[in-house]
Amino acid sequence: MLTLYGDRRSGNCYKVELLLHLLERHHHYIEVDILAGDTRTPEFLTRNVNGKIPLLELHRGETLSESNAILHYLADGSDYLPEDPFLRAKVLQWQFFEQYSHEPFIATARFINRYLGLPEERRTEYEAKQEGGNRALRVMEHHLKDHDWLAADQFTIADISLYAYTHVADEGGFALEDYPAVRAWLGRVAAQPKHFDIPRD
Amino acid sequence: MLTLYGDRRSGNCYKVELLLHLLERHHHYIEVDILAGDTRTPEFLTRNVNGKIPLLELHRGETLSESNAILHYLADGSDYLPEDPFLRAKVLQWQFFEQYSHEPFIATARFINRYLGLPEERRTEYEAKQEGGNRALRVMEHHLKDHDWLAADQFTIADISLYAYTHVADEGGFALEDYPAVRAWLGRVAAQPKHFDIPRD
Ligand SMILES: N[C@@H](CCC(=O)N[C@@H](CS)C(=O)NCC(=O)O)C(=O)O
Ligand SMILES: N[C@@H](CCC(=O)N[C@@H](CS)C(=O)NCC(=O)O)C(=O)O
Repeated sequence: MLTLYGDRRSGNCYKVELLLHLLERHHHYIEVDILAGDTRTPEFLTRNVNGKIPLLELHRGETLSESNAILHYLADGSDYLPEDPFLRAKVLQWQFFEQYSHEPFIATARFINRYLGLPEERRTEYEAKQEGGNRALRVMEHHLKDHDWLAADQFTIADISLYAYTHVADEGGFALEDYPAVRAWLGRVAAQPKHFDIPRD
Repeated sequence: MLTLYGDRRSGNCYKVELLLHLLERHHHYIEVDILAGDTRTPEFLTRNVNGKIPLLELHRGETLSESNAILHYLADGSDYLPEDPFLRAKVLQWQFFEQYSHEPFIATARFINRYLGLPEERRTEYEAKQEGGNRALRVMEHHLKDHDWLAADQFTIADISLYAYTHVADEGGFALEDYPAVRAWLGRVAAQPKHFDIPRD
């Protein structure tokens, strides 16, 4: 039995929970409250010395961290990850783009706004995140104008990775009205059977 | 024939050039000067709309960006990437750790210091990078105390990814004396046949 350590407000954790659900993989879910410091306890650090969720614990007690690495492990052999080596590399390209050029802006702005309530001392940082986040959305818009999906001719875990923080980007102050192709793609992802979104308060 | 667009001072580009060399894959190399704005020209943006190097162009004109995605594509089927699905996921875990928790601190501090000459207006940012970079080095130290390599019992592309900016971390102000296991691992990587380092001025 798999065990997922996660926080239900986190997009990185949502990616893994959504894929487990699409794959109908039974699993335990252990709620970890980031704001309460649950990822910094000595006990949690023995599971992931980097102190981050999501964390997947396998049958034999082995652990795997990094949301996108977990998606690859779970999706391997399924319809959500193509066999073709070039397409697999394209999936990775989009996922590394997500972690480097998208998440640090959009997820962080959302964290400051939604989790922390946009405190005055973080307003400058929040505002500085807008430019990078919009740059990432423009890259997606450019691609999605001519393609239904990000990495292949089918829905893959690359779409799950980018959907996670894009569908709640408004909570980070991003106006998706300017990105019609991104919005159409969000609709296609949301229309997948068994899909669910991150809960809003 | 493969074409690599890169800048020889960049650790992200170095990862790909090193692997091509280890695999003895003949390729064209096109030097792109980041500081001169070569990644922001209309011509380069048609190759990678995200405006970043490294970029790999394949025989048929297809392109692949994101250093770690390129490593997977090139290493597939070689000794540098295990077949076992869990080990492949562990390779990815370390590579996503690199892009999220290591590179944004260590590579950025190095960029500010070595490329830009530590200008006064970026000193605060440079200093703020030290904590995150040292946190990443502690995570590596913790693992390498008990393991020769990062992801498996053998040298893999995860080691290439983390080696890239770790072996020049001093150029970002990081003192590797505090990390003996990291230093021993750097030595093991450097001792691989056909290895080369990033050139120092
Ligand atoms: N690169 C990681 C990022 C994970 C991450 O930043 N997780 C956050 C929650 S979304 C976390 O655990 N933060 C707690 C902390 O850093 O103390 C991934 O993709 O899994
Ligand atoms: N996540 C990317 C990062 C690539 C990156 O940041 N490249 C830098 C050089 S090291 C670059 O092209 N910078 C130019 C720019 O952003 O304009 C990767 O791993 O390839």
